[in-house]
Amino acid sequence: MNEKVADLGEFPLIAAITVRLPQGPTVLVGPGDDAAVLAVPGGRIVATTDLLVEHRHFRRDWSSAVDVGHKAAAQNLADVVAMGAAPTALLVALGVPAELTTEWVLGFADGLREECEPLGVSVVGGDVVQADAVVIAVTAWGDLQGRRAVTRAGARAGDVVAVCGRLGWAEAGLRVLSRGFRSPRLLVQAHRRPAVPYDAGPEAATLGATAMCDVSDGLLADLGHIAAASQVRIDVDSAAFEIAGPMRDAAAALGAQPIHWVLTGGEDHALAATFDAAVALSERWRVVGRVLDGDGVTVDGVPYGDSPGHAHFR
Amino acid sequence: MNEKVADLGEFPLIAAITVRLPQGPTVLVGPGDDAAVLAVPGGRIVATTDLLVEHRHFRRDWSSAVDVGHKAAAQNLADVVAMGAAPTALLVALGVPAELTTEWVLGFADGLREECEPLGVSVVGGDVVQADAVVIAVTAWGDLQGRRAVTRAGARAGDVVAVCGRLGWAEAGLRVLSRGFRSPRLLVQAHRRPAVPYDAGPEAATLGATAMCDVSDGLLADLGHIAAASQVRIDVDSAAFEIAGPMRDAAAALGAQPIHWVLTGGEDHALAATFDAAVALSERWRVVGRVLDGDGVTVDGVPYGDSPGHAHFR
Repeated sequence: MNEKVADLGEFPLIAAITVRLPQGPTVLVGPGDDAAVLAVPGGRIVATTDLLVEHRHFRRDWSSAVDVGHKAAAQNLADVVAMGAAPTALLVALGVPAELTTEWVLGFADGLREECEPLGVSVVGGDVVQADAVVIAVTAWGDLQGRRAVTRAGARAGDVVAVCGRLGWAEAGLRVLSRGFRSPRLLVQAHRRPAVPYDAGPEAATLGATAMCDVSDGLLADLGHIAAASQVRIDVDSAAFEIAGPMRDAAAALGAQPIHWVLTGGEDHALAATFDAAVALSERWRVVGRVLDGDGVTVDGVPYGDSPGHAHFR
Repeated sequence: MNEKVADLGEFPLIAAITVRLPQGPTVLVGPGDDAAVLAVPGGRIVATTDLLVEHRHFRRDWSSAVDVGHKAAAQNLADVVAMGAAPTALLVALGVPAELTTEWVLGFADGLREECEPLGVSVVGGDVVQADAVVIAVTAWGDLQGRRAVTRAGARAGDVVAVCGRLGWAEAGLRVLSRGFRSPRLLVQAHRRPAVPYDAGPEAATLGATAMCDVSDGLLADLGHIAAASQVRIDVDSAAFEIAGPMRDAAAALGAQPIHWVLTGGEDHALAATFDAAVALSERWRVVGRVLDGDGVTVDGVPYGDSPGHAHFR
């Protein structure tokens, strides 16, 4: 199992990946041709792509190949559900160093499958090329099942802001790993594999969410995208969040403020949405703020004193 | 215009890219949200992805940013038409070094647009992240417009093999550039920007092509994929090809055999298809071989003496 991808070669490698990836009933032509062909019963697709680069988005010494497969799938599937759609398929393009083991690549494929299979999502094709570091480009699409798409642009003054899913856990895990620790395991695991509340996206659309996005850059940064697209102000109530025990412990150990991780930590892929205040939300949605006239994002009525989330190219 | 992407920042960069990319009427939600939403009138989509890595698939000193945009779009659009579909949309994920100029990125976007616009294809979204070298992942979609998909698996003994488009030109251009030359310009340009016969893909499907693929790895290698998928043998007639003047001249200057470039050169994205021998093909299709019982690919009845095309991870 220490065989290198260069020894196996491209086509045997692709064949070994493909047998690990079951194809669902909407896949009319699966992996192995110039392109895949898929049935799109609703007549509309939701489609998104993300690029993950080794050393920047993951480290092979911090995350297993299976973890990276989970994460690469999850962050794209989260974008699909954040439009109110049910995910249906992935395409995965992979750049790998010639000396990478085939075991790593097959572990990555296993991670993709494990994340996709419970959702009925098929990995319908992809590409494998040589690169100096591992590079992963995932494209995901989904089916709105007759629902309207929930964009970032529909929030209205008077709406409430609600979140579903973890906030700050992946950031806390990253901080823990960065200091050389491997625990608390729950936080480290949250960095390695986001726990995306997939079915909450379609649920929010059905409940009439006026705007929605997944929290990939940090809650305040991502609410800033909704505020900008909707031309409204969003005020977040810092007392609305519950700080989980492992977060509190890790923050104390690292001399950090856990509420800062909650407000600005990315990569948990929670969902943030706005709803008419009259909507009865299920228990997993937590109301954490409100939509007002104006622009920008405030916390407890005032601008946040620190960076609102992940800044790229800085 | 020597501004670096790190100075401009992610979101202004994305905004500057997006204004360059017009959206067609099937785009229901375009760039700037968690995902794009597209109308799929035919109820089926054709989808493919490719990864291009700087230094391996292109060099910034050999190709302009506009060239790279053309090529990244073209190689994916070629996969779509090779299924018999009309391309409709692209997603483009881009990894760029922080010190890359914004001019390069905007030139790349211009190249994408120039390749897509004549086909009515919209670039509906993407991703921009930081990377050590330029990495480009393109996903392309297309619409079969009611036609059946033409896979690699339908060739039958007795069919003819026909090609449409250039063969060996991109390879010749690459050889010329590799020796430090910049001419013949036609060949160098063929390496930089493939001239894909896009409408020949849907045409072949309408004519009843039994199998088809685009020539990305080299004609013999790609016909090998059809032979394997169709469980047939393909014999190529080396006398059927016309060697263009610039190819003959460059081969003479470099001490190469131009027919070797024609048979094994990749990246021109010509189309190769098999048809029932009774089909009346239009003039741009050139019959270059036939389908027989057996397996593998032969040239003039015998196995080809050299590598059949581009080998990955070697």
